[in-house]
Formats: sequence, C-alpha cells, structure tokens
Amino acid sequence: MHRVAASLNRMTQHPDHPEKPSLTLLGLGAMGSALARTWLAAGHPLTVWNRSPARAATIAAEGARAAGSAAEAVAANSLVITCLLDDESVGDALAGADLAGKDLVNLTTSTPAQARARGAWARERGARYLDGGIMAVPPMIGVPEAGGYVFYSGSRELFERHRETLAVPVGTTYVGEDAGFAALHDVALLSAMYGMFAGAAHAFALIREEDIDPASLAPLLADWLVAMAPSVHQTADHLKSGDYTKGVVSNLGMQVAGTPTFLDTAEQQGVSPELLVPYFALMRRRLAESSAEESLTGVVDLLRRRPNH
Amino acid sequence: MHRVAASLNRMTQHPDHPEKPSLTLLGLGAMGSALARTWLAAGHPLTVWNRSPARAATIAAEGARAAGSAAEAVAANSLVITCLLDDESVGDALAGADLAGKDLVNLTTSTPAQARARGAWARERGARYLDGGIMAVPPMIGVPEAGGYVFYSGSRELFERHRETLAVPVGTTYVGEDAGFAALHDVALLSAMYGMFAGAAHAFALIREEDIDPASLAPLLADWLVAMAPSVHQTADHLKSGDYTKGVVSNLGMQVAGTPTFLDTAEQQGVSPELLVPYFALMRRRLAESSAEESLTGVVDLLRRRPNH
Ligand SMILES: NC(=O)c1ccc[n+]([C@@H]2O[C@H](COP(=O)([O-])OP(=O)(O)OC[C@H]3O[C@@H](n4cnc5c(N)ncnc54)[C@H](OP(=O)(O)O)[C@@H]3O)[C@@H](O)[C@H]2O)c1
Ligand SMILES: NC(=O)c1ccc[n+]([C@@H]2O[C@H](COP(=O)([O-])OP(=O)(O)OC[C@H]3O[C@@H](n4cnc5c(N)ncnc54)[C@H](OP(=O)(O)O)[C@@H]3O)[C@@H](O)[C@H]2O)c1
Repeated sequence: MHRVAASLNRMTQHPDHPEKPSLTLLGLGAMGSALARTWLAAGHPLTVWNRSPARAATIAAEGARAAGSAAEAVAANSLVITCLLDDESVGDALAGADLAGKDLVNLTTSTPAQARARGAWARERGARYLDGGIMAVPPMIGVPEAGGYVFYSGSRELFERHRETLAVPVGTTYVGEDAGFAALHDVALLSAMYGMFAGAAHAFALIREEDIDPASLAPLLADWLVAMAPSVHQTADHLKSGDYTKGVVSNLGMQVAGTPTFLDTAEQQGVSPELLVPYFALMRRRLAESSAEESLTGVVDLLRRRPNH
Repeated sequence: MHRVAASLNRMTQHPDHPEKPSLTLLGLGAMGSALARTWLAAGHPLTVWNRSPARAATIAAEGARAAGSAAEAVAANSLVITCLLDDESVGDALAGADLAGKDLVNLTTSTPAQARARGAWARERGARYLDGGIMAVPPMIGVPEAGGYVFYSGSRELFERHRETLAVPVGTTYVGEDAGFAALHDVALLSAMYGMFAGAAHAFALIREEDIDPASLAPLLADWLVAMAPSVHQTADHLKSGDYTKGVVSNLGMQVAGTPTFLDTAEQQGVSPELLVPYFALMRRRLAESSAEESLTGVVDLLRRRPNH
C-alpha cells in the first residue's frame, strides 16, 4: 500500500523528475527539515515522520508525504534516513519498525561506539547500515558553495548505491567500512575546532580591556589561524614516520622557552591562562622526556591513556 | 668615523643602490641573520653586532660591516634594530650604548609590559622607540609570498620614516602608539594558534590506534579549521555589541548538550580529555549564568580575572 502511495506521490507531485529515487526521512528538527527541503526541491518523492506531528505537517505542505507512524514511514521506502536528536532517539523511533531489507542511513550524531552498536543492531534486523556525521549547520544544507559535507562510514555498497541521493543536500565523504569512523572523523574535526575556539577566546580576552577594536583583531586572527592550520600536515607526517624532527623550524625547546611570555602576558592582562596551561604542560612534559629538536607532535602521544608501545 | 665607513661601504659595495638607507642590526641568531641577509640583498648598508663574534663574521663575509661592540654598532647609524633572545638581552646589549637621537626598533619577543618599559627606558635615553613582534619564522623572511609580517607599535613617526626599510625582510602591520600593542597582538595570535594546535593534537590522538592514515585526516582537519576560523568575526561583533545572540546558528545550549559526545569519544578511544575539558567547563559555566541562545562568546568574559562590570 505504501509503495502504491509512493508511486502515486511520485507521479502526481513530480512529473518533471519521474526518475528520482524515493526515500524516507525520520526526524524533522532543524537539520532534518533542511535536508527534507533539498530532496523535495530536487524532485525526490519523500516520506517523512516526526515525533511531534506539527513539523511533519509543515514539510508535507511543501510536498512530502507524512506517514502516520515511524513504522509506516520505514515501510514506504527501501532507503530510510534518520536524523534524530541522539542515538537513544533512533532506538526509540525505530523500535516498532520492520527493518528487513532496508538501507538504513543514520545521520544522527553519535559516538563511534554508538554508531558501531547501532550498525550491528540494524544488521541483526536485516538492514544494511551506513552511519553519517554531518559537518554542516542547517543554513549550509542545499548550499554547495558553503562547503559542508557528511562523513559516511559502514556499508560501502549502500553508500555507492545511494551516493547521488545522499549528495543532494550536502557533499559526501566516505571514510571506511567501520561504522564508527564517520563519528570518529566528525568528533575529531569538531574537537580540533573547539581547541581553536578556546585559543581565539583567550586571544580576545587578552585585548578585552585595551583600546583595541575586536573587529580589527578578528581578521588578523583569522588569517593567522588559516596560515597555521596546514601545520597539521607535518604532524601527520611525523606520526606516520615516527621521526618528529624532520623539517622542524620552531622546535619544542624554543617553543617551551617561549611559554613564559604567553603566561606572563595573560597575567599582565588579567586573563586566566586556564585554556593554555594544559597544552603548555604537555609540551614541557614531552621536552623533559624527549628531545628539544622535535616538533610539537609528541603531545599527541602524551594524550593517549593506553600507551602505544 | 663610522659614518665615513658606512658611506664608503655604501659606495664600494652597493654602487647600484646608492640611495638605500643604512642601518644597524644587533643580534644575528636564526632570525637576525635572516633579516640581515634581506637588507644586504636589497642594497642597504648594514652594520651588525652579535655577542659571539663568529655569527657577525659570517654576515660580514656577505657584505655587512661588523662592529667591534654594540656601542660602536649603535653609533654607526641612526636606525638601530635589535633582534635578541629576550628583553633582558636587549638591556645587556644596549647597556653601554649612546642612544641619544636614535631610532630604536626592537624586534625581540617580549610581553606588552616589557615592551612598554623598554620604550620608556629608550625615551629616557633620548631615543624614539618602536616595538615589533615577528609573525614569521626565519624561512619566511625575504619570501613575501610566505605571508609573514611584523606587528609594530610605538612611535608612529619612527614607523612612517623607516617604513620602506622595515618592509624589506617581511610585511609590516602598525597597530598603535602604545608600545605594548605589537607584543599584545603577537601573543594573542600565537596563543590562539596554540589552542588550535591543542585541538589538532587531540584529533590525532583520537585516531592514533585506529586504521586511519593521519595523512588522510590532515587535509580534512586543515580544511575544517580554515572553514571555521572566520567565526572569530562573529565573536568580535558580539564583543563589540554586547549582544551575544545575533546571527547564532549553533547556540550555546546545543553545543553544551553535544559535549558528552566529545568526552565519551575521547574515553572510548583511550584519549585524555585534558585539552578539551577546560573550554567545555567554561561553556557550561556560561550556560548556567546566561542564556542558551548565545554564541560561545561569553567564554571570553569568563577568562577575565578582573571582571568588566
Ligand atoms: N543543527 C545542527 O547544527 C547540526 C549540525 C550537525 C549535526 N547535527 C545533528 O543532526 C541531528 C538532528 O539535529 P537537529 O538540529 O535537527 O536537532 P533538533 O532540532 O533538536 O531536532 C531533534 C529531532 O529529534 C527528534 N527526537 C528527539 N527525541 C526523540 C525521541 N526520543 N524519539 C523520536 N524522535 C525524537 C525531535 O522530534 P520532536 O520534533 O518531536 O522533538 C526532532 O525531530 C542531531 O544528531 C544533531 O547532532 C545537527
Ligand atoms: N626564530 C624564530 O622562529 C622566531 C620567530 C618569531 C620571533 N622570534 C624572535 O626573534 C628573536 C631572536 O630569535 P632567534 O631565533 O634569532 O634566536 P636565537 O637564534 O636563539 O638567537 C638569539 C640571539 O640573542 C643573542 N643573545 C642572547 N642573550 C644575549 C645577551 N645576554 N646579550 C646579548 N645578546 C644575547 C644571541 O647571541 P649569541 O649568538 O652570542 O648567543 C643571538 O644573537 C627572539 O626574541 C625570538 O623570540 C624568533
């Protein structure tokens, strides 16, 4: 019955794109609604469900079919996408659905372990599973020039089969068969971003009481961060080779020697150094345990609670 | 006598650039030597001094005049540039020199307070003072496309007078009459950079034990950091207006709600969260004291030990 409805939907609502694959989307929060609109705009027959029906009604008014339950929405299409609050809500929403033979793509933010467990859970129920980590905010969805994308991991077959449909709202980057890798990449990039935000917060705090316009610091700060971001390539090379000294210009010894200037300046400006101190402490620890000629890469090893060797 | 030597030097060594202003440089470490070579290459008659004479001899062999003492080097030119280890070494080197009427440009890394004190010290001795903070490493000196530059603050008159000469090795950015502002900008940008490095170290630690090539993470990480760096413009706008909610897409409430995913992932991957925890703690504190609708800007205010209000 749902298949018939979907076909009817396709023929009546999108006569100009009869060939676009149909899909189901569970979850119409800020992100889910943004995704839904891009598929509708591209002519994909779309069945939606949302826990609170008002949001589903809004998207239905824009051309989607609103299913009466999550189970009904799942039954409507073989491609089922979830974009819910958290992993628990995915379990809740799919509890009564028949997943046998489904291609389940879960765009709900989760940890790698949650993604792996959800993948196993889906496979037990006869579904193929692809996990996604969204590197974008809703205003970037459907705006290719905004540069957002989704990390995907899990079933490569599923990814390849639905690649074009998945690419409609935002770019796609497949990072491996391990269902946890999308979440791991997502968390890794966002963690690094929070480090950058912490550094920027410290920078703005330093000038807060001075006669310096934050808007004149901002472009200098942005340009400097952009210029320094590529240093992660050297970190990667050093981690791969195990040689942390190759091509080092500002070595660990020099940089540790410079840390009092940063701490003294914070003190002079009345700024707590709490966001810098933990990194400086690891730099010093690495210097004590290793060589002044290294890059800062050794800090990565000190963060590991289970040592590598 | 030194003026005669300098004129002779100019005429004999640089017949094709007879008009370039002459200058003195104290300090020929990694950075000073790089600077020296660019002025020589551009045809500036250059007098140099270095505490250990071997480095001065090397640069003399490339066309500079090596003075026998710092005092003699200072006497040779009205423009005197110092690029020494730290503020203390500037005091040491200039102890016996007559600074009356000199234009002293101090490129030695220092704190804002040291720079202000050094400026007052120089003015007491009859010199004009310009402080510099070098945003470059030696390989970027003399390589305009590398994008390095020096923050200058202090005497604007001195900066304008020697602008062209100062611009020979690397770009110039004047940030105000307060002699401490160059150091403050320098420290602010580098502090932010260390935050970014801390975040990147955490990201690499997360994937360290997984079958993920660090060199495949690196470009994703660099691109993401580059894409997120411009968020400092919003931070600046919020700090200026005092309204931390304008244009916010991912609000504080949502971001605090997401922090368990980052901490759980670190735990799962065997990575210490010590570089993320302090920033997350401030995010949570701000949320408790303020509104979920804000950006992350409120963290800046929490870093101030002397409250603004
Ligand atoms: N927004 C962003 O900037 C952004 C960026 C990247 C990734 N993401 C991720 O995308 C996912 C969705 O985010 P969002 O911004 O759309 O969140 P949101 O606006 O808060 O929407 C949450 C959605 O989850 C549903 N939900 C919550 N608990 C549920 C439960 N127990 N059972 C069934 N449904 C439940 C909500 O239904 P009701 O409408 O009934 O409450 C709503 O549809 C999240 O995992 C988020 O981390 C978001
Ligand atoms: N290298 C960089 O990547 C970089 C980047 C930005 C800013 N800077 C700043 O540039 C300045 C110079 O750095 P650098 O890399 O050239 O350092 P460096 O290679 O260690 O050289 C230090 C210089 O200071 C001299 N010096 C040290 N103590 C002295 C004293 N008590 N009296 C007189 N001279 C003394 C040394 O003389 P000797 O030769 O006799 O030891 C040498 O000329 C520093 O403030 C540094 O922070 C450097």
